[in-house]
Amino acid sequence: MLLSLEILSEQLRKLPGVGAKTALKYAMALLELKDSEAEAFVSAIENARRNIRSCDRCFNLCEGTLCTVCADQTRSDAQLCVVEDARAVMAMERVSGFKGRYHVLEGVISPMDGVGPEQLRISELVDRVNEQLEKGECEVIVATNSTVEGETTAMYLTKLLKPMGAKVTRLAYGIPVGADLEYADEVTLGRAIEGRREI
Amino acid sequence: MLLSLEILSEQLRKLPGVGAKTALKYAMALLELKDSEAEAFVSAIENARRNIRSCDRCFNLCEGTLCTVCADQTRSDAQLCVVEDARAVMAMERVSGFKGRYHVLEGVISPMDGVGPEQLRISELVDRVNEQLEKGECEVIVATNSTVEGETTAMYLTKLLKPMGAKVTRLAYGIPVGADLEYADEVTLGRAIEGRREI
Repeated sequence: MLLSLEILSEQLRKLPGVGAKTALKYAMALLELKDSEAEAFVSAIENARRNIRSCDRCFNLCEGTLCTVCADQTRSDAQLCVVEDARAVMAMERVSGFKGRYHVLEGVISPMDGVGPEQLRISELVDRVNEQLEKGECEVIVATNSTVEGETTAMYLTKLLKPMGAKVTRLAYGIPVGADLEYADEVTLGRAIEGRREI
Repeated sequence: MLLSLEILSEQLRKLPGVGAKTALKYAMALLELKDSEAEAFVSAIENARRNIRSCDRCFNLCEGTLCTVCADQTRSDAQLCVVEDARAVMAMERVSGFKGRYHVLEGVISPMDGVGPEQLRISELVDRVNEQLEKGECEVIVATNSTVEGETTAMYLTKLLKPMGAKVTRLAYGIPVGADLEYADEVTLGRAIEGRREI
């Protein structure tokens, strides 16, 4: 294969879930773009990388100093949803009616990868919780993923924040709405039983 | 969503088969690249677009004036495989033991899309066939896809090149090797019966 095409394909494999065949397909498509289209494509990457940064307060993605959630005066400061990354904020914003604030940890505690609490935005979280507790109540909703690392982080945060006087909650785990019980995996089903509610 | 992120996602949807969700996933991945990685990514696109052009002779992709196939002195000029695009050349080169030359039409005859024979590299093909016929035999293997447009183009080329004295052949269509007869579609099965060979 041509060297430039090979290099381009290799670069495209940096995109998540893209293998050799898809990368080549993408590379060919990029070659076939008109000059103006290719310029728009490249500028979009460059502009996004230049303009998008972390929110000063919650570390969500933003284009100014504060993200849209932090800048929104109508949202409640009393609820703080702690997530692993900005993707999780997007997912929450897309579906839920959550009207509190977020705090992006920028990762999870993972000793295997050398990530301890000090590598995450946990001290900033503690500051925010303290600040809020001075004003009134504070509920921290821990919405890290239900992986081993996510659970470890959730546990760490609970032990840290509860003694400070914050109410710490965790997202409910259970059978996805619309899913068949028969196909639920054991762990999920176990969690669903554990978290059962009186009706 | 952030404006720059939205623009980037929209641009990523130019890649074949990429929908809104995948585009956003790719956009986030591009944001998370290190600066050096992002520069390599963008340069790869720019370099490939700058360096890769059409071969002067066969219109396959190349980085110089002639593509690797045309530059290869060991290949036979007596066989000319006519394909729709450079992807087809890549596919042929990947698998087959074909040792002739290629000719990329850069499309197929498609009156619906306003593409007639004059928009394709057909006059160049005629010149090459004529040139070869002066030297000796010339077999034109028509390897356009088996779509309506591909078949139309194949038929057009046959009518054009046969009277010139060239031998015109078409790739065999039939049951894919390893596939079950039961699952072959009617058209393929029909072609397989039509093209049966004595053993």
